[in-house]
Amino acid sequence: MSKQIATNITWHQGAVSRAERQQLLNQKGITVWMTGLSASGKSTIACILEQMLLHQKKHAYRLDGDNIRHGLNKNLGFSADDRAENIRRIGEVAKLFTDAGVIAITSFISPYKKDRDAVRANMNPGDFIEVYINVSLEAAEKRDPKGLYQKARAGEIKGFTGIDDPYEAPEKPEITIDTEKTSPEDAAKQILNHLEKGGYLTA
Amino acid sequence: MSKQIATNITWHQGAVSRAERQQLLNQKGITVWMTGLSASGKSTIACILEQMLLHQKKHAYRLDGDNIRHGLNKNLGFSADDRAENIRRIGEVAKLFTDAGVIAITSFISPYKKDRDAVRANMNPGDFIEVYINVSLEAAEKRDPKGLYQKARAGEIKGFTGIDDPYEAPEKPEITIDTEKTSPEDAAKQILNHLEKGGYLTA
Repeated sequence: MSKQIATNITWHQGAVSRAERQQLLNQKGITVWMTGLSASGKSTIACILEQMLLHQKKHAYRLDGDNIRHGLNKNLGFSADDRAENIRRIGEVAKLFTDAGVIAITSFISPYKKDRDAVRANMNPGDFIEVYINVSLEAAEKRDPKGLYQKARAGEIKGFTGIDDPYEAPEKPEITIDTEKTSPEDAAKQILNHLEKGGYLTA
Repeated sequence: MSKQIATNITWHQGAVSRAERQQLLNQKGITVWMTGLSASGKSTIACILEQMLLHQKKHAYRLDGDNIRHGLNKNLGFSADDRAENIRRIGEVAKLFTDAGVIAITSFISPYKKDRDAVRANMNPGDFIEVYINVSLEAAEKRDPKGLYQKARAGEIKGFTGIDDPYEAPEKPEITIDTEKTSPEDAAKQILNHLEKGGYLTA
């Protein structure tokens, strides 16, 4: 059944499809999932990638601590269960943005392999790429822009990834960036190239 | 501090702004929050509105039971606390889409005034409009496309809105639609006109 309005346009039953949204935006939805230690450079790279995409008239949206931890996930703490739920919810939101045709860029430490793998398993193949923002603990601790490692070493922060909580590096990430040898700009370009080659920047 | 890459484009520090995303999409982000009884016509109107927006090359995304209850909110039940948390999370996701510059259309019964008001209070003024999809219980029960009212009357579903759980109508919704006198197409056009007049369909 279809119905008409005065303008003679026929509105079909059912929803606008993902393909239609992608046509509108001339891109494909995808989740670019960055993982790495605190101070690895995730946010810096995410911001530059977002700008590069905008420059190509692509619609991207970043999910990060600023807009998630104080909003959707403000009722979660840092227990193992809450950390898992934190990543699960972020994965579900990234999935919605991906379905909306948006390039979702997430920048969370996301230290546990099983949590990241669950996000991947929950998405369609090709909708999720894992970007390992690799830095040695020594280098991250030397950078320490927010003084968090220092506080963790002093015992003022408990369960800090890399100090008294493990970071499980991805085994088969789509992209690995060695931030001790690669500038944030070159890292963002590396991800952008991957998206271009994968056909994500056209519908 | 700004940095350059080989293409001579300067990437600024910090994130792409909401205004930049809105310029790209030539629209403003907003949450169109539909509320009303089961079988009031929320989903039908939402789907038609989405199609009308796409026809105008506007980027909209619907949040509804299908993509929320089986995803982000699959770990919530129907207790009072879980219902509140359900709406809170949906509100947070709608806020993210709105910040992304997208027209977020939600179609949930959302029966409690305090939960809807909390979503509104959590957003910037103008980012949230409440659309009351008004239908009498009698008319909704007569429609009953999924047989839910019948099951609720038979006691097979507990806590069903309108039967043994209250529906609190909005007091000051931006838009009220009387679905017993208005076709779904006309309802969608009424909302579209509101968005046009409010300047949401240009950046």
